[in-house]
Amino acid sequence: MSFNQRSTGYPPAMRRLVNELTKLPSIGEKSASRLAYHLVTSDERLSFSLSDAIREAREKIGLCEVCFTLSENPVCEICGDMTRSRECICVVEKPADVIALERSGHRGLYHVLHGLWSPLKGIGPEKTRIGDLLRRVQAAGSEIKEIIIATSTTVEGDATALYIANAVSELGLSVFRIAQGLPKGGELEYADEITLSHALEGRRRI
Amino acid sequence: MSFNQRSTGYPPAMRRLVNELTKLPSIGEKSASRLAYHLVTSDERLSFSLSDAIREAREKIGLCEVCFTLSENPVCEICGDMTRSRECICVVEKPADVIALERSGHRGLYHVLHGLWSPLKGIGPEKTRIGDLLRRVQAAGSEIKEIIIATSTTVEGDATALYIANAVSELGLSVFRIAQGLPKGGELEYADEITLSHALEGRRRI
Repeated sequence: MSFNQRSTGYPPAMRRLVNELTKLPSIGEKSASRLAYHLVTSDERLSFSLSDAIREAREKIGLCEVCFTLSENPVCEICGDMTRSRECICVVEKPADVIALERSGHRGLYHVLHGLWSPLKGIGPEKTRIGDLLRRVQAAGSEIKEIIIATSTTVEGDATALYIANAVSELGLSVFRIAQGLPKGGELEYADEITLSHALEGRRRI
Repeated sequence: MSFNQRSTGYPPAMRRLVNELTKLPSIGEKSASRLAYHLVTSDERLSFSLSDAIREAREKIGLCEVCFTLSENPVCEICGDMTRSRECICVVEKPADVIALERSGHRGLYHVLHGLWSPLKGIGPEKTRIGDLLRRVQAAGSEIKEIIIATSTTVEGDATALYIANAVSELGLSVFRIAQGLPKGGELEYADEITLSHALEGRRRI
């Protein structure tokens, strides 16, 4: 059933809201209709507060001009923190990954790609921030010693990692990939064979 | 992982947006973070348009004072349509059900309960619009001849139907429940036994 069929019969303002909600990622027509119903029938403060939060976030938040993570200032707090080592850049796909790594205790800098190289989806390296990474590394001269590529361990994440490793290989930097193996608490019995083979290859003396 | 842990490290406006989004039904912390990322990085016209649509819908849309479906006017288009029969009221759970029944060709009136009687969830009949239905039927006198209860065929839907049937039984109205049976295109082999027993009970001469 098409969107128009489903929402015909709603008042115009409701149709418009359902239509706008379906433009969000992974929100289909049914979810949009359910969310819109909630937004027009529950406490109106919730709806106005969400409306304001969307507008405020879109107006205030941009990308850090150094590392491209989300920031309310031209340079984000991490890049502006002069107590951090400038020697190591951790390359990630999206801002949420920066937050995950911060929790893990990484104290270097970051570079957010906002996408991965994905030939199958027609996404070339030029649609990510890989070019900005190369320019950033070149401009920094010898200040940067190490790049850790912390993209996901998917086909696209691995392809992107290889692409970056090739591109920066001539610059005399150490390029690392995050380790693959069993997650904490992972049971050997249920691990897939690729994870296990990585866990064996990457074995460390104890 | 709690919400606060996950979003610490985002700029304040982003944290606020993630927080507001998690208040929506069936939007968890991960989905909220993904939606917020989309809203602050994709075309800003989409975000402003959604923000405006939420505000506009909340300001314009209320409930019809007769049948309680969504409406931009005190009385909805269906209740205000004097070419419709006033004799039959179809009772449904939510406004989306009105739209589904309109497509099926029902030409009577509606009554939207905005909830079902659900003792297990602690939702009594007084939290739905059942009381308004009884007052509406009494006030209409002999104008209303028939009530069709078209709540879902779930435990709550059936319980609500029985509750309403009991409550209006003294008013001399015909009360019907929508038929249960195989859906169009349904294969007998895969139908559950309760559906099949309803389909047999409700058999009609051809």
